[in-house]
Amino acid sequence: MSDEMAVMDEDEVHADRVEAILAAVEAGDADRVTELMEPLHAADIADLLEQIGGADRRALLALWSGEIDGEILSEIDESIREEVIESLPREVVAEAMRELDTDDVVDILEDLERPAQDLILDSLELADRVAVQKALSYPEYTAGRLMQREVVVAPEHWTVGETIDYLREAESLPDQFYHVILVDPRMKPVGYVTLGRLLSSRRVVALKEILEDTYRTVPATEAEADVAYMFNQYHLISMPVVDDSNRLVGVITIDDAMNVLDEEHEQDMLRLAGVGDESSLSDGVWATAKQRLPWLVVNLFTASISAFVISRFESTIASLVTLAALMPIVASTGGIAGTQSLAVAVRALATRSLTSANAKRVVLRELIGGLLNGLALACILGLAGASIFGDWKLGLVLGAAMITNQLVAAMGGVLVPLGLHRLKLDPALASGTFVTTLTDVLGYLAFLGLASLVLL
Amino acid sequence: MSDEMAVMDEDEVHADRVEAILAAVEAGDADRVTELMEPLHAADIADLLEQIGGADRRALLALWSGEIDGEILSEIDESIREEVIESLPREVVAEAMRELDTDDVVDILEDLERPAQDLILDSLELADRVAVQKALSYPEYTAGRLMQREVVVAPEHWTVGETIDYLREAESLPDQFYHVILVDPRMKPVGYVTLGRLLSSRRVVALKEILEDTYRTVPATEAEADVAYMFNQYHLISMPVVDDSNRLVGVITIDDAMNVLDEEHEQDMLRLAGVGDESSLSDGVWATAKQRLPWLVVNLFTASISAFVISRFESTIASLVTLAALMPIVASTGGIAGTQSLAVAVRALATRSLTSANAKRVVLRELIGGLLNGLALACILGLAGASIFGDWKLGLVLGAAMITNQLVAAMGGVLVPLGLHRLKLDPALASGTFVTTLTDVLGYLAFLGLASLVLL
Repeated sequence: MSDEMAVMDEDEVHADRVEAILAAVEAGDADRVTELMEPLHAADIADLLEQIGGADRRALLALWSGEIDGEILSEIDESIREEVIESLPREVVAEAMRELDTDDVVDILEDLERPAQDLILDSLELADRVAVQKALSYPEYTAGRLMQREVVVAPEHWTVGETIDYLREAESLPDQFYHVILVDPRMKPVGYVTLGRLLSSRRVVALKEILEDTYRTVPATEAEADVAYMFNQYHLISMPVVDDSNRLVGVITIDDAMNVLDEEHEQDMLRLAGVGDESSLSDGVWATAKQRLPWLVVNLFTASISAFVISRFESTIASLVTLAALMPIVASTGGIAGTQSLAVAVRALATRSLTSANAKRVVLRELIGGLLNGLALACILGLAGASIFGDWKLGLVLGAAMITNQLVAAMGGVLVPLGLHRLKLDPALASGTFVTTLTDVLGYLAFLGLASLVLL
Repeated sequence: MSDEMAVMDEDEVHADRVEAILAAVEAGDADRVTELMEPLHAADIADLLEQIGGADRRALLALWSGEIDGEILSEIDESIREEVIESLPREVVAEAMRELDTDDVVDILEDLERPAQDLILDSLELADRVAVQKALSYPEYTAGRLMQREVVVAPEHWTVGETIDYLREAESLPDQFYHVILVDPRMKPVGYVTLGRLLSSRRVVALKEILEDTYRTVPATEAEADVAYMFNQYHLISMPVVDDSNRLVGVITIDDAMNVLDEEHEQDMLRLAGVGDESSLSDGVWATAKQRLPWLVVNLFTASISAFVISRFESTIASLVTLAALMPIVASTGGIAGTQSLAVAVRALATRSLTSANAKRVVLRELIGGLLNGLALACILGLAGASIFGDWKLGLVLGAAMITNQLVAAMGGVLVPLGLHRLKLDPALASGTFVTTLTDVLGYLAFLGLASLVLL
């Protein structure tokens, strides 16, 4: 409770600061803006730029552009990055880019349009430009795009002492590195040593004697989602990246993997809810509406299937109008059960805990679970229906339709994502619409069909 | 595509291995089991134990228990950990615990019942037992539970050379450490130095000269979700943990933070779908059914509200039965729109991009976005309805009800999670049921209400 309080207070402090900054911007007081922005971390500045409106953002940047550095640009959300970069003076962008490691430059470049891309490439030094262009030659969402090319390597025959001396002499080292990678003369990595082991070993110890056993490499063409999975599964801190001939081309560090994991989660959650991937809180009204319209239109058509099914039973409903009031209960409870199965299955596929090895058992479990809950719900609904309307046959129809639809929901919720996964599609994509269409249509069909057989 | 192929192949290789292991277990061939398990990483062994059925798991453990080590136990999912630990000989558990850092022992202990907890505590050496008991005295889900007490510290006046000499002499260092934390004589941390800086600096350099500027500490009572947020937001690798008097009590490393982030995501996704938190793929049928039943029952009651609303319009439906077929379209499309708004808002609250500073603007954006999509959907549905049924008034009613319900959905989707957040409740909890109840009830009400006014 007290932690939640702290968060709320932080939120208020934050809101106050945003207000003060916007007031200073409006007053055109550049010194005051700088004073208020200065204590903020680059990531918080980026968040602030995302949270304020477009007009405020432009005014703030006009007053404060010189202070924007590479770190801020690499923290800014894709949805407004292009806008921010284009509003900045060229030399500010060029200077900002020169500060960054290649992985961050690539991360910024890949989302930009051609002219802005070229502008940034031109501002880089030759070696960095070549490195960035090489990284951009790997397909999007692969390890090659994610890695930094700045690596710390040592020949495999070196000792701890030789390595430390080399590091002390090195002109420039990456901002972050957690291992020294051992390579053979052809630049093929053979293992790595943690910096902790390096620091705690005597100078005469050979690097080969203190290699880590968690060592793994990843091909540059591997999907970034798989890279993130490996970091999380095997508790890695950094992972060397190799090309087709198994030569070292870069290294991925855990902060980038954590970022990918976070984005994958966001994607799963938004896709399950039928929102386009590129959604962001800093999107404008038009962008927001456009991202959501497609699945709404799809749902309009799938809902029409339900309407068509119901229309086949119009004479049944006309003879007993109460059926119209009761029919959404069975359909809606089925929708919830389907969504539950679906969320569990999508999550299990994402964490690879649902595999060919246990798919059959999981499907069976869902089926029996659906049956059990169907029975429980059927008892409640059936008894309530029978006693409220004084008609045990109506209770029977409600109960039987409920059981049927809970079974359909349980099956649909797990088979739809499994099927999409087998077809090499994202199990989260479109599953929600599929499953609720299924539970709606079959819910109405079961209830009205049984009613027309039993009650009339 | 080829990456997805690789994943599928891996999945088959995995399924083949699981089959081979189960065959060896059935044959009682302990050597073959050991041979097949040996190449697997502890995390993969834990996954395997979760994926096979309960009976197979017990048979495998009976044959192979001696090989279970601390790392495997700490990787195993909570849902089966107690079962596994209780099936193991005491000395195997004791030996396994002695290998682990305190944070991992705490992570295992906190989910166990009292007798199993005491068993493990008794098997620890005195110093470790005290450390673990201290950690358990912090509230659940706080930094104090997450941290490891093994820290690498140096007095603030030391040089690089002194630190390296100390590390080389140290009897035991943590498995993982990425910084040397500088402390004053009262054990208050004053900053930290990355191992990379330490290695690349000359021996005479003072530690104080190479402190990291990203340095942050966290109180032991801070919520673990906030800790995970800070790691992700500020790209931290490790963070010192302090007590009330600001003294160093431990350190949290990024792999633990990544794990918390992953669990928070899982929780959001499952809660949004109305599944209990403790859900896991290795749960049995009863556990699965029980976790899902509560929200299904809640939905049964909320759906009854819709049924009641519809029943108030029975005479309207009796005069025009087509209304019964058409009414789910408006309700269902509203449900989708509400779910979309909701997913975006819950995600934005989790990443703290939705704050007091921009809440008003986001709500306004949702409202206008809902209006735009409502207009688009109203045109499609209204025109289709009018032409199919040859009744422009019916088209008008469909369109007007659609716009109303899209507005309700957009508002509900963002205001419900914001309200829960203000009340210091989890915005993902119960939001889904609230919002779909809202869109169902108001969808039926708007459509049938307008129909009774305009059409009859």
